[in-house]
Amino acid sequence: MNSRIILLAHGSSDKHWCDTFEKLAAPTLEAVANSRIAYMELAEPSLETIVTEGVAEGARDYVVVPLFLAAGRHLRKDVPAMLADLGKRHGVEMQLAPPVGENPLLGQVIKEVVTQQLEETADG
Amino acid sequence: MNSRIILLAHGSSDKHWCDTFEKLAAPTLEAVANSRIAYMELAEPSLETIVTEGVAEGARDYVVVPLFLAAGRHLRKDVPAMLADLGKRHGVEMQLAPPVGENPLLGQVIKEVVTQQLEETADG
Repeated sequence: MNSRIILLAHGSSDKHWCDTFEKLAAPTLEAVANSRIAYMELAEPSLETIVTEGVAEGARDYVVVPLFLAAGRHLRKDVPAMLADLGKRHGVEMQLAPPVGENPLLGQVIKEVVTQQLEETADG
Repeated sequence: MNSRIILLAHGSSDKHWCDTFEKLAAPTLEAVANSRIAYMELAEPSLETIVTEGVAEGARDYVVVPLFLAAGRHLRKDVPAMLADLGKRHGVEMQLAPPVGENPLLGQVIKEVVTQQLEETADG
């Protein structure tokens, strides 16, 4: 297949932080063919690593879905610049999707998480 | 009621960023009694504002649920220090819950968001 999905997390030198994102990505990586996780900075695999690997395997189109709750400077400026550079250098199409937090499903699941949390707090 | 739920977002001087968090919080604020949103920094209402208001209304117990995907330095150091200070100054109980991203429901909903995104990309 010529396309690939990249779940993009910010990245951190803190292993626990990256572990959380790997858990967040796991159901998608399992269910969606040709999906990968990549980090913007401070952790591997980087976007560069994942795109280089994809290109070697023939992937020409990349959809990048940010594992961010909202778009700040990183998603408005830094990430578009990184994707433009990667696209140009590797001769591939890079498409940036909205951050997951802009999908209304997230607000619904946060309500469920808070409700669970309150039950646990009441039980504890 | 003597307890209150605070959905804690990071905060930003960027109004679009705060709008996204207000949308993320809206289903919870509507469904869960005595719930509020507050920002750690750079936006209002701050934690201080929400706790001061709660104390004036008789709320003595606060459960703070971070609208963060993972725990970094802010949630490991800065926020616990802020809650300890607020609790001491106002004579109230402040309890910090895990960030919403540590709940497995988030990984499931991210899978749904990515699947929706791919359908839209294919249609477009």
